[in-house]
Amino acid sequence: MEAKIVEEIKRNKAFLIASHINPEGDAIGSALALAISLKNIGKEVTVFNQDPIPRNLQFLPMSAEIIHEIDGSLSFDAAFVLDCGGLDRVGKEIEKIRKIRKIINIDHHITNSRFGDIRLVDSQSSSTAELIYAVLKDIPIEVTYEIALNIYTAILTDTGAFCNPNTTERAFHIASEMVRIGVNPSNVAEKIYQEMPVSRLKLLGLVLNTLEILGNGRIASVVATLSMLKKTGATPELTEDIVTYPRSILGVKVAVLFREVSKNYYKVSFRSNKDVDVADIAREFSGGGHPNASGGNVGGSLLEVKGKVFEAISRRLV
Amino acid sequence: MEAKIVEEIKRNKAFLIASHINPEGDAIGSALALAISLKNIGKEVTVFNQDPIPRNLQFLPMSAEIIHEIDGSLSFDAAFVLDCGGLDRVGKEIEKIRKIRKIINIDHHITNSRFGDIRLVDSQSSSTAELIYAVLKDIPIEVTYEIALNIYTAILTDTGAFCNPNTTERAFHIASEMVRIGVNPSNVAEKIYQEMPVSRLKLLGLVLNTLEILGNGRIASVVATLSMLKKTGATPELTEDIVTYPRSILGVKVAVLFREVSKNYYKVSFRSNKDVDVADIAREFSGGGHPNASGGNVGGSLLEVKGKVFEAISRRLV
Repeated sequence: MEAKIVEEIKRNKAFLIASHINPEGDAIGSALALAISLKNIGKEVTVFNQDPIPRNLQFLPMSAEIIHEIDGSLSFDAAFVLDCGGLDRVGKEIEKIRKIRKIINIDHHITNSRFGDIRLVDSQSSSTAELIYAVLKDIPIEVTYEIALNIYTAILTDTGAFCNPNTTERAFHIASEMVRIGVNPSNVAEKIYQEMPVSRLKLLGLVLNTLEILGNGRIASVVATLSMLKKTGATPELTEDIVTYPRSILGVKVAVLFREVSKNYYKVSFRSNKDVDVADIAREFSGGGHPNASGGNVGGSLLEVKGKVFEAISRRLV
Repeated sequence: MEAKIVEEIKRNKAFLIASHINPEGDAIGSALALAISLKNIGKEVTVFNQDPIPRNLQFLPMSAEIIHEIDGSLSFDAAFVLDCGGLDRVGKEIEKIRKIRKIINIDHHITNSRFGDIRLVDSQSSSTAELIYAVLKDIPIEVTYEIALNIYTAILTDTGAFCNPNTTERAFHIASEMVRIGVNPSNVAEKIYQEMPVSRLKLLGLVLNTLEILGNGRIASVVATLSMLKKTGATPELTEDIVTYPRSILGVKVAVLFREVSKNYYKVSFRSNKDVDVADIAREFSGGGHPNASGGNVGGSLLEVKGKVFEAISRRLV
């Protein structure tokens, strides 16, 4: 499949590169690695993402050039849609993207809907960036420091610092290559993990104080209320990965974060170990996600919401 | 230097393998990787460490066979002393070890005192395990799954999940090799990082609630009191890496954990970014360590202790 993509790159001049809403390291790193590569061989490249670039990814080369709306007068020969399980994941500009003559779908999600004219979809890949790296090797395009920094960051973040199940021999091999090219792993880790706003740590303290353990030690939950956000000055995004803390407890199979969105309405995040499919649980609460990381929404008082959620989890723990 | 070590291995039969007090992943992983390797080629091997094996390393193959005292009637042809900056780091059995005919010092600490008859000391190495791996390649001894699991765990822990400054191209390359041999990175990460006692998370919540930011945002501190340990049921060891949390705040150059040891006596842990040498600060408080991670002890009320420590830090921040 790389061959067809290489052909499209060689034949065309103007490319759009799009990735998914609420982007993280792989969405942005893959898009920028490809964008810099194409620019370096004289192509015209526009990088689009509907949403703002997270603060801790703004150090990535070329990240400031990402646009958040597509000017209708622009025309493209082809569009790369990266790290998107479905085309709708690009967000509000979907109709403009759909009209582009060739859509190239590069992704590693097992749920990929196989949209687009050309597809490079491999759920065995640690990250979309790993697939981008394969394409660059095939053209071939020299992997400069700026490209390497984007690829490394994408792999680092998508593998959870090489701790998630998608961490493969090849992910480590590419990381090794990127370091050879000049990437400094500790500098990147510092940018990604070590530059937290103080409000986040204050929030973490308050949230951890709500820790509850139930189901014979197999369920752990924490709560983030609106008053905690107010008290600490933290934004709702800063609650995002707090659910990984209750998940880290010995014996816990399912961890839950209840985040108050408004009076009697909660966003619920789930994390689990291999044994429990929390995407299945999240679907009961108009949500979804991955088997071990998912989320949904539940109405009611905190006590009601907890009751519904714990009941749903308990049914899967038998 | 590997050649001399290879010669000693080939020539002799009975080996002691020792590593440092309060062992962590590299001390244990290096020792066990070497022990299994030597056993696999028919040698007699005894692995010694003065202290108990931390709970999260007890999954390592052969870890249950580590002895904590050396029977004086045992005799050894040679002793490997691993991951020790000085021979005294082996602890209470130093005199028995000192008497062994050949002492082989394998270490990656920049402060290594160059003790022993044969030395393989390389501060450019991510870990002592990386040096063990080089020795195995030279003999050569086949790296089995059990050996690979020990080497991988040592590199993972000593590089802080590939985030510390000692994370090199070669560290990633070896990690890639170990995964090829069969190591499952997410399973290891789960054993190392995901099996926390619930008391630790409760303690983390209470400690984070004491967060103080000063020095124009460049100093962050937290406090762990004896009453917090009592309330949560946490052991003092569980406070160990909590100082990395205040260190993760944007703009913070020095982070401090004040841990109450007894009335009016505090253990103080320091973490810093590249700019500040906290080993130098720790030395003022009868302690020491690495430039970016160190600790000392200070007497006085919490307010007095804070005063002394913040004053010492401020002098270095100018």
